[in-house]
Parts: sequence; C-alpha cells; structure tokens
Amino acid sequence: MADTVLMQEMSWMAFAGHMQRGTPVLLAVGATEQHGHHMPLGVDAYLPMAVAVGVAKEVGAIVAPVVSYGFKSQPKMGGGPAFPGTTSLDAGTLIATVRDILRDLVRHGARRIAVINGHYENQMFTIEAIELARRDAAALGIGDVTIFRCEYWDFTRASVLAKLFPHGFPGYALEHAAILETSMMLHLRPDLVEVSKLAKEEPASFPPYETFPVRDGWVPPSGVLSPADSATAEKGRWLMENYVEDIAAALRKEFSLP
Amino acid sequence: MADTVLMQEMSWMAFAGHMQRGTPVLLAVGATEQHGHHMPLGVDAYLPMAVAVGVAKEVGAIVAPVVSYGFKSQPKMGGGPAFPGTTSLDAGTLIATVRDILRDLVRHGARRIAVINGHYENQMFTIEAIELARRDAAALGIGDVTIFRCEYWDFTRASVLAKLFPHGFPGYALEHAAILETSMMLHLRPDLVEVSKLAKEEPASFPPYETFPVRDGWVPPSGVLSPADSATAEKGRWLMENYVEDIAAALRKEFSLP
Amino acid sequence: MADTVLMQEMSWMAFAGHMQRGTPVLLAVGATEQHGHHMPLGVDAYLPMAVAVGVAKEVGAIVAPVVSYGFKSQPKMGGGPAFPGTTSLDAGTLIATVRDILRDLVRHGARRIAVINGHYENQMFTIEAIELARRDAAALGIGDVTIFRCEYWDFTRASVLAKLFPHGFPGYALEHAAILETSMMLHLRPDLVEVSKLAKEEPASFPPYETFPVRDGWVPPSGVLSPADSATAEKGRWLMENYVEDIAAALRKEFSLP
Amino acid sequence: MADTVLMQEMSWMAFAGHMQRGTPVLLAVGATEQHGHHMPLGVDAYLPMAVAVGVAKEVGAIVAPVVSYGFKSQPKMGGGPAFPGTTSLDAGTLIATVRDILRDLVRHGARRIAVINGHYENQMFTIEAIELARRDAAALGIGDVTIFRCEYWDFTRASVLAKLFPHGFPGYALEHAAILETSMMLHLRPDLVEVSKLAKEEPASFPPYETFPVRDGWVPPSGVLSPADSATAEKGRWLMENYVEDIAAALRKEFSLP
Amino acid sequence: MADTVLMQEMSWMAFAGHMQRGTPVLLAVGATEQHGHHMPLGVDAYLPMAVAVGVAKEVGAIVAPVVSYGFKSQPKMGGGPAFPGTTSLDAGTLIATVRDILRDLVRHGARRIAVINGHYENQMFTIEAIELARRDAAALGIGDVTIFRCEYWDFTRASVLAKLFPHGFPGYALEHAAILETSMMLHLRPDLVEVSKLAKEEPASFPPYETFPVRDGWVPPSGVLSPADSATAEKGRWLMENYVEDIAAALRKEFSLP
Amino acid sequence: MADTVLMQEMSWMAFAGHMQRGTPVLLAVGATEQHGHHMPLGVDAYLPMAVAVGVAKEVGAIVAPVVSYGFKSQPKMGGGPAFPGTTSLDAGTLIATVRDILRDLVRHGARRIAVINGHYENQMFTIEAIELARRDAAALGIGDVTIFRCEYWDFTRASVLAKLFPHGFPGYALEHAAILETSMMLHLRPDLVEVSKLAKEEPASFPPYETFPVRDGWVPPSGVLSPADSATAEKGRWLMENYVEDIAAALRKEFSLP
Repeated sequence: MADTVLMQEMSWMAFAGHMQRGTPVLLAVGATEQHGHHMPLGVDAYLPMAVAVGVAKEVGAIVAPVVSYGFKSQPKMGGGPAFPGTTSLDAGTLIATVRDILRDLVRHGARRIAVINGHYENQMFTIEAIELARRDAAALGIGDVTIFRCEYWDFTRASVLAKLFPHGFPGYALEHAAILETSMMLHLRPDLVEVSKLAKEEPASFPPYETFPVRDGWVPPSGVLSPADSATAEKGRWLMENYVEDIAAALRKEFSLP
Repeated sequence: MADTVLMQEMSWMAFAGHMQRGTPVLLAVGATEQHGHHMPLGVDAYLPMAVAVGVAKEVGAIVAPVVSYGFKSQPKMGGGPAFPGTTSLDAGTLIATVRDILRDLVRHGARRIAVINGHYENQMFTIEAIELARRDAAALGIGDVTIFRCEYWDFTRASVLAKLFPHGFPGYALEHAAILETSMMLHLRPDLVEVSKLAKEEPASFPPYETFPVRDGWVPPSGVLSPADSATAEKGRWLMENYVEDIAAALRKEFSLP
Repeated sequence: MADTVLMQEMSWMAFAGHMQRGTPVLLAVGATEQHGHHMPLGVDAYLPMAVAVGVAKEVGAIVAPVVSYGFKSQPKMGGGPAFPGTTSLDAGTLIATVRDILRDLVRHGARRIAVINGHYENQMFTIEAIELARRDAAALGIGDVTIFRCEYWDFTRASVLAKLFPHGFPGYALEHAAILETSMMLHLRPDLVEVSKLAKEEPASFPPYETFPVRDGWVPPSGVLSPADSATAEKGRWLMENYVEDIAAALRKEFSLP
Repeated sequence: MADTVLMQEMSWMAFAGHMQRGTPVLLAVGATEQHGHHMPLGVDAYLPMAVAVGVAKEVGAIVAPVVSYGFKSQPKMGGGPAFPGTTSLDAGTLIATVRDILRDLVRHGARRIAVINGHYENQMFTIEAIELARRDAAALGIGDVTIFRCEYWDFTRASVLAKLFPHGFPGYALEHAAILETSMMLHLRPDLVEVSKLAKEEPASFPPYETFPVRDGWVPPSGVLSPADSATAEKGRWLMENYVEDIAAALRKEFSLP
Repeated sequence: MADTVLMQEMSWMAFAGHMQRGTPVLLAVGATEQHGHHMPLGVDAYLPMAVAVGVAKEVGAIVAPVVSYGFKSQPKMGGGPAFPGTTSLDAGTLIATVRDILRDLVRHGARRIAVINGHYENQMFTIEAIELARRDAAALGIGDVTIFRCEYWDFTRASVLAKLFPHGFPGYALEHAAILETSMMLHLRPDLVEVSKLAKEEPASFPPYETFPVRDGWVPPSGVLSPADSATAEKGRWLMENYVEDIAAALRKEFSLP
Repeated sequence: MADTVLMQEMSWMAFAGHMQRGTPVLLAVGATEQHGHHMPLGVDAYLPMAVAVGVAKEVGAIVAPVVSYGFKSQPKMGGGPAFPGTTSLDAGTLIATVRDILRDLVRHGARRIAVINGHYENQMFTIEAIELARRDAAALGIGDVTIFRCEYWDFTRASVLAKLFPHGFPGYALEHAAILETSMMLHLRPDLVEVSKLAKEEPASFPPYETFPVRDGWVPPSGVLSPADSATAEKGRWLMENYVEDIAAALRKEFSLP
C-alpha cells in the first residue's frame, strides 16, 4: 500500500503526508461510451487513467479516483447516445462532480491539480468545473491554486503522428475508437480488445453541422469513426510514452516540479 | 471480453445483447473516505463493487461502473470530512449522478436495476435519485421499471454476526473501518490492508446529537470507530458469501429471475 | 407577546434584543405525513415543535417557525408516499429551505442554532443544509457559528424505554405512528388522537432492502408500522420530560449556557 | 378531529375521503417578516391562513399547512431584509417549495387548488411555482387541474376601503404593518398586538426606484410604512368577512362549487 | 466607434477606459412578448433600451447588451403566454442571466450599475438577481457596489399622465400595448407600428385573482389591455424626455455624478 | 413591419401566421467578448445574427432575438475572461437560456429550428440545451421536432479559405478577431471597425493544455490571436455569401424546404 500513486489504494495518513509535502493531484475524467465492436465501453476511462498514473509516477504526483461517466456522446465525436451502453451525465451533473472534487481537494490542501480528460465531449464542462471551483476557492480567500487541464491526445507529437499515419493524419475528429485508442488499448489492456471484430467500414463523413435527431447513415453502424485496422500494441506503446513524457514535462514546468 | 459482467469491459454489442435479453443491471455507489491507518480511501467503493460483481455472476446480471465519490462523510458514520483524503460530493451532485445513470440505463432498455450502496451517508441520496429517475421515466410513459436498493451490510445474517461478535454486536453505527470492513478487505484485497497499523483505541462514543463543527475527542484519532483487531480474511469470506448469496436470492425474488 | 419563545409571536424589536443577548435559536423540521387512522398528518411537525418549545423555555432560547413539509416518506420509515395526504418536498427543496433559514438567522447574528428534526427521512438533508449554510458563512468570513442537530427520539433514556416496552424495544425503525408518537400526541394534543381507530395489526416486517415501487403487503394498510395500543398520555408526558430535560442539558453543554 | 379543515389535524383516511369527493385544497403562503414594534414576525403567515380557513369552511375546502417563510422582504413592500427577524428564502427555494407541494397535491388527486398569498413579495414566485407544477402535471398527461391564485387584499371592497380610509386610500404599497394588517390582527389575535407600541411616524416615502443597498431614511425606523393608529378590531372583522365572502364566491365560480 | 455608449459597439480598450474612470453601466432587461396587432414582439426590449441609451448619454454612462427574453408573460400584465410569439424564460434562468451579467460587470470594476426593466413580469426576478449578485460580491469581500433598479414607467410625471389621460389614468396594470407603449414606439420606431391595426376593443377587465389556465374572455383577442387609439408620436416624445431626464436625475443623485 | 424576418419586429399575428405555415425559426447565439483593439465587444453577436438573417431571407425562415451573452471566454479561443468587457454567463445559465427559448418556440408550434452559434465557447452548451429541450418535448409527447445546429465558420469553403489564406490556413483556433471576423465586420459594419488600430503582433502560440490562471504571455496583449491586417470588406462579402448560400442549402435539405 505504501508506494501507490492511487488515492483509492492509499490510507488517509499517506494522503495527508502528500498534502504536507505539496504533492500534485491528478484527476482523470472519462466516460462510459461505445467504442466499436472491438473495444469495451470503458475505453475513455481506462486511457486517461493510464496516462495519469504514468505521469504521476514520473513527476511524483498522486491520482484521484477516475470520473467514470462523462457528458453525452455526440455523433461526430463518439458515435452518439443511440449506441447501447453509452451512459452519460447531464452537463450540470458533470460540472458539479468535477467542481466538488476539486473543491474538496483544495480543502485538503492541494494547490497543484491536473485534470486529464479522456472524452472529447467533456472538454468545456471540465473547464466550467474548474472556473467554478476557482470561484469557490476565491470566496474562501484561497488564491494560490493552479489547475492544469488537457485532452491527453493533444500532446501527440508530430513525429509520432507521422509514424502512425504515413498517408496523413485525418484529424482527431474521426479518431473515435480508431487507430490511436485501439493501439493504446492493445498496449495496455489487450485482454479487452477483440481485433477480429474490427469493423471494415468507410470512415464516417459528417456535414459541417449537426441535426437532432441525427440522420441515418452519418455514423457507421459499428460506431467506429475511421478504420482502426492498422492499430498495434507497439503504436500504443509509442503513444503512451509520448503522452507520459510530454505531460510530465508540462507539469514539471507549470507546477515548478523538480 | 466475452463473459465479463462489467459494463466497462464489455462492447456495446454485448451490452445490447443483455438489454435484449432483459439482463438486470447493478450499480454500486461508494465513496472516497478515510478508513483508518490500516485501510485505503477506496474501501467504500471496493466493497459494494465486489458484492455487486459476486451477485451479478450469481444471477446473470451485469454491473455498471462504480460511483467512486459519495456524500460528505459524517463523524458518527465515517469519521467526518476533516480526515485528509475524504473527498465528497454535495448532495445535489450525488443525487444527479445516480439519477442520470439510472435514466440512461432505462433509456437503453434496462427495466430491473439494483443500486448497491457501500457508504452509509449515501442512503437517502440514492433514494432521492431513484425517486427522481422514476419521475423521469413516468414523464416518458415508462412505468415498468423496478429498482432495488440496499446497503449490503443490512444482509448480514444473525448467525454470521454471532460468529463475528461473540460478545455481542455493537451495531453498524460504529462499524466504520472496523471488523466487518477490515475482514472483507483482508479477504478481497489483502494487499491494501496493513494489519500492523491497526489502531489500538477505545471505540468511539457519540452523544445522541451532532454539532457542526464536530467536537474534539468524539472521533478516535485513527478514524476507526471501533476496534478492528479481530478482523480476519476468513471472516471476510463468510461475509462476502453471506452477502452474495442473500442479495442474489433477493434479486431472484424481486426481479423474478430463474 | 412579551415573553413568548416563538419567533412568529415576537416583534422584530424583541427578536433584535435576543440577538444582542446571544440567545440561541431552535428550528424544528417536520413533515406532512400519514400517521395511521388514529393520528393526523401533522404529527411530525407538532412533536419536534413541542420539544423545541419545551427546550427553549428551559434554556432561554427562541424557536423559529416550523418547517412543515419534509422529505418524501419512505415505506420502511413512515409508510411511504402512496398514503393520501403525505405531501413532501424534493431533496433539493428541503436542503435549500433549511439552508436559507440558517443563512438568514446567521445574518441576523445568531451564532448558536439547534435543528430539531421530527421526521426520520429528513436527517441527511438537514445535515447537508447545515454543511452548505456553514459554507455560506465561511464565504463571508463568519467562522464562529455552532449548529446542533438531532432527531429528538435519540434522546430517549434507556430507563424510559424499559418502562414503555417491558417486553423489549423493537427499535425506532418500526416506531412510526406507534407507541412513542401516539403517547406524545395523547399528552400534547389529545384532541387530535382517535384512540378508537387504533389499528389492530401485526407490526410491519421489511426485508433488508427496498424496491421501487414498494411491494404490496410490506406496509400495514393502516400505515402504522407497529401496534400502538399501549400508548397513554402519561407515557407521552414521560417522553416529553425526558426529551426536554436531556436536550436542554445537551444545549447547555454545547452552547455554554448557564 | 373529524370536522377540521386543516390537513395537519386530519388523518390520511379523512384526507383520502376529501380527495375522493373532489374537495378543493387551499394553500396559504406567508413570510417571517418584521411588522413594526406592535405586531409579531408571523403576521404574513397568520393572516392568509386565517383567510384560507374562513374560506375553506365557507366552501367546503381543506387547507394545507402554511408556508411560513417567503421571499426576501423589500424596503418598499415590507421594510426590507435589514430588520432583525425578517427571515427569508431565496427565489428558487420558494418556487420549489410551492411547486413541490402543488405537485404532490395533484398526485393525491387534487384538481382544484387555491394559493392564497399573504406577503406581497411572494407574488411572482408563486406564479412561477404554479407554472412549473402545471408543466410537471402536463408531463404526466394530467391536464384537468385548475389553480386559483390571489393576494387576499386585492379582494378589499371599495365600500370597505371607503369606511377604513375616509380621507382616501393611500394604496396597498404603503399598507405594510399598517391599518389593514393591524386591524385584522386585532380581530384575530389581539394577544399578539401591542397597541401601545404603535409608532407615531410619518408614512414612508419612496422614490420611483430602488437602490441596493437601500438608502437611510427611506424606511421609517419602526418598519411601519404608514400610520396604523386608526386600526381597530372591528375594522379587522369587516375585512375578514369581506375576504372570506368574496374569495369564497370567487372559488365557487371558478371551481364550479355548489 | 469612439463615442458610442453601447458596450457591443465599443472595443475592450474603450470599455477598460470607462472602468478606470468609474463610468456607470446600465443594463436594460426586456422580453419577447405580444404587443397587439399593431406593435412587434420586441417592444419590451426596444423601450427600456431606448431609455437606457438616452439616460447614458445624459449622465455619461454606458449600456450593456439588452436582455431580450424575460419572464413568462401573465394575462393581467401582458396578455399571457398563449399569444404566439411570446417567448419567455423560466424564473431561474432570468435570475441567473441578470446575476451573471452583474457579477461579471462587478469583476471588471463596475461599482455603479443600473438595471432598467421594461417588462412588468421581470420586476421581482431582477430584484433577486441583484440580491444574489450582491451575495457573490460579498463573498469576494467587495462591499462598495451600488445597484439602482427601476421600471422606467414609474418615473412618469403626474403632469405628463394628466396630459395623456385627460379623463383619468386607468393605471399601469392595463397599459400593456396601450397608450404609453404605443406612443413611445411611434416616437422611436414608427416603422414598427401599424396604426391601422389598432384594435377597437373594450379594455380588459380582470377579477382580483388569477386562474391557471386563464379563463376565456379575460384578455381581449388582440392582446391589447386597454385602447391605444389616442397614442401619438408627440406623446411618445414627452414620455421619453420625461424618463430620460428624471432617471438621469435619479442616477446623478444616487451615483453622485456631476 | 410586414416582411421582416426578425421576430422582434413582427407582430404576434405575423408570427402566428408563420407557425401555421410551418416556417423554420433560426436562433443566433453570440457573446459579449473582446475582439482586439480594432473591433467591438459585440462581434460574436453581430456575425451569427447577420448570417441568420441572410439565411432566413434565402429560405423563408424567421429569426428569434439574438442571445447576446455567451459562455466564458477562454484564452485559447477568445483571449479569456481577463480582457475588460468580456461579460459571460455560467454554463448552467447559457444552457437554460437556449433550452427555455427552444422549449417555448416548440410550444408555439415550431418544428424546424436552427441554432447558429457565433462564439466558439458556446458549442457544447448549445448542444446540451438542445438535448434538454428535446427531453422537455418528449415529456409532452412531442416527437417531431428537428433542430439544426452549427458554428457558421465550419461552412467556409476550401476555395474561399484558399483565397483568404494563400500561404495556408492556420486553423480556426487562432482566428479570433482575425482575418475572418475582421473581414466580415468590414463588410457588414465598417463603422465599427478601426483598421488603424489593428495590432501588429505575432500570432498567439499555445501549448497543448491550459492552466488556470492563464500564464502571462500566452495571449497577445491586443487580444487578437493571429494577424488580421489582410482583412478586407471584399473578403467579408465572400464569406457572408459562402455562409448564407451553404447554410441555406443545408437547411433546405434537412428541413425539406423548397
């Protein structure tokens, strides 16, 4: 139990020690969302949590329990809510969840907190949660909190993208359940990927707008937004190393860590 | 991936199959709360999740991702919010979280859902969440949902209590981080229990009221509300078997399962 | 009007004098809920209000207007919402009501406030209201407020229980509309009790869980959870004296009253 | 207990009978607010409740427990929040309280409900509560609810005003804690009026706007907005008879009562 | 762009200059509501905005973007929600909108803010918004904000009323879409008034209460609550000059402007 | 008044006619946000409104009053909240505003509604507003509403981008107050652009994450995220024509318009 980075595996005494030493706290925010025929509903929670744990070990931080439910899946970002199993929170609930956790971490003394998002649709709601938690802190006269926030995939190096997409990167928009996520899952949890079920479909093609309800045919039946068949565990390892190293470097800089 | 009971390990196709077959869904609701010097902050999430998984395997149900944050710890129930690491949600946030999850499960077709609570303070908020999710369902004309709810420890058999507490059971009120929870953790996750750190303290003694702020001396410094030194993994196994068998039996009855 | 303890009977000048002298304020929180064939819907408001008034006279406190509506009745605690007349608030509404009242009392200068609850289902929501009112106070830099909270029945002395239940106390869980409440109403408001309508039923018997909707047969048709036919006004007087004396003593201690 | 009109004094069986017979339900909404040196904080709850009880007896309706706390007192309407004892709810809380009560009364079968307001500041919030309760009902497909709403003083007959104000009626705006309310309290609860403390002040004089914070000198120090020294119990009786008769007539018409 | 009073036409540098010089900020709050056959849905936004701009030029203030949607129209005040096009916000939404704007203006340094309301139904909700924005400011230790609030028509001089209503003023209650508003629109936006469509109807006549749903026949079919056929642009000019001069004078006094 | 497309300039009769004929309704959602030294705070409201009006004339739709306040500006998207004049709503307020407007438009009979967003930060909140308005509609059994949503700039044709950015398009991320917006404003409201004040700065450069508070130096002092000096009114005309034509075409397709 002694040297875990996970808050849920740590006694309150151990956590108290971290607070006294000013240890940064990382919070991964995920979702429960379809990820094609070949990957499980938990991908968007597994991946930011794995990144957070890797980064925490690298910089001497600790990691709070993952937020397993995120904002409603959107067709252009994750296939949409119609896929069975995609189980989501209202905006107000997600904002309140992250705000409450941040407020309580600040109460315990955390002054350097990083929110690592693994579900595209969560972005703006984690931002609002941070804004409101900072308002809460300001009301108590606490002004020295720094909060870092990212989508982990925004750290993908151009050199890594070039290796993964030799014919050009189609953009993160269509990367749902596709090469990046599948490769990382093959690296981290190969037991949860069924390569044989990888759909052979055309990439999704969306117009520059949305309709509610979504039109038939916009989202491929599998829920995979672009072909993932070139995914490999090795590529996943490259990505994980990329993310852990570069987010760790960013935290060292922003949190003035050694 | 094929025969997991965990939604997060399951593809949307597998989940869809469950919905078509009418599989019940179990939702464990926990907390991030101090559990003495000898146990980690995640006990209240680990235990109801372990119970839920055991029950799901027994009755052919599936289990949604655990809710890892619960309502504010109270001194008489869990030591209170002052212990470092005890990280909690406001009432409205917890209610909304469980309500949203239930609403979305119902949207996917779940009609038999069980909420298994592992943190005493969550009780009334999970009740309100269920009431509101039923109101949401009623607004859509959905009237055939049955929701089961329990604190798992209320299933402890008198015979098991007698074996565990030969000198008489002091009541669940003081069982925070004590014999029941420690035994179960020794059975399930012995790697997360440090028996050597078991505090040798008198049981907590509370007056029949609360004060805010709490008075010094009411809660033992360790956060353990009554001595846990007779906890063993074997006792934990008895308890787990008790809970799984009896909650499974209750679900079979209430959900008309084979 | 001069020597009333009731805020609603007091001029603002009289109230202002109390605030200047540091008089504690008591707030009774009740419900509008069925109490069997023999008692009225207002029992859960009458009783904590009577206790509060008794205590206030004893310790020199004043009493705010009662909160007459409480959280949704639950079958195992009060028969459940299906009984006609049981008229309840959502959790958020009850929390906000008590929070707003506490916030405004603090604004007027009250620094010692006691919340006396008369409806089991209200417990956790009054706790959250107090937590949030304390957060409100903290935002204004007010740190010297002490709030006392109780369910009045938790003060029942063992000696009184022994006299009332010579064959053993079945527990508060089944005491809804039963011997304790009926005796107190016979003592305080005999005009509102119809002894002849006391149901002759078996005590309710609940499994260690709930279902929504509740199953037929769990709650006795009368709404009385255990037989009340041994209730008497004298027993009610014992209870009232017990509660007033012991809650007064607790307030003297916690509020440092003479 | 048998022939009370008060829900709080009525058993659930009696209430159920009323619902089966289609009895209308009246809800008085008040406040806890200063009413000068000579009257108590509860005036705005006592008066609409007395009117409601009078009307209920007249038309065969029943009366729900009064809402004792209202919206924040405003200087031009009731002296403002600065007077000690004026204890108020946020807008959202008051709206939710009345909405929840209405929703639950509709659930029990009430289809003709009257909201009788006794605190000027509550007007718009009771309107929103009714709008939202109707939205709730519509979501359940309930379309046959009629809700009546009034400030009771709007029923004052011109002939009664002429008798009370022989030199001309200054308008309801300045009638806070003045002739109308004082007369009614002298009629209904003379024990709670201290005529000797009637302030001898000029009527309040307000500009056609407000400032926050309020300016010194706008509100008379006593909190009485216009002189009340001509108030008598007889005038109070005239008013009560006026209100009861005319509101009863309005309900008979709108609720198609015999 | 240089000498506009409108925030939306001003660069952030220009706005910053105003904040440094302590310029007051005016916020007009309106509605989207029917105004008879002869006037458009935007009247309640156009008019307070025109007043605000006039006042701002007079006293050297600036004007924030108008709030174009207001609280639900009521039959007795504006014809009610049933008229097509009347598009409104829930109470909580309107309160939050004005609160957020005020909070952010205070954050930028505004210390003298005037809320000018153009829709009767908004009154109490703008009051609550101001109360809550002041609570927000207090939590940050900001205590020197003055907020002015009015319905612009409350500034109508007796002499102007006498000229407009030679046979006596029927009261603001029935002035919806009638002489005052029509005259002002004829003065300000004659292109948006179709005099030929002025309904020839009897004035509305309401009982001293409301029913939900509203009864047929209470509101004239046109939506105009009293005849507007004597409206002229000249009268509109008188009114505008009246409002601008007198509100400007009030602001000079309350904001200590030169 | 007869042939306006603006709801605020339209009588309720005219609006009613549109509803009877099934006319689509467009809602522009903007913000009050800094746009450099050379453009005013209202750009994000002016532009989507101009696009909406252009599209409405093209397809025979009408346009609701613009939402002038949006979600909090973010440094990477619009310079951030620190710029004076950037006046924003909390997430919950913006969601509620758009939800309420949509709900009321649906109540009036609108079945084809388009939300045209002009402020990047609003995207996810308008999505949630639409999801919740659809939930509201579903509760009333209304299932035939289609809602279209877009950021207007996502319709920029590749050919237009190529003409505007001959050296390659740097991406929408840095286009705040830059060539696209400045060109459109020069075309539409040249009176509100001060070309001489165009900042000569390097484009902003952001790391792949955010910090709260934002770091000094990330946002150029002017608030312009990339150089706008090549903006011209002609380019603005190209863009407007592009947006109007292509959004009109999309609405014709999705709304089955002639």
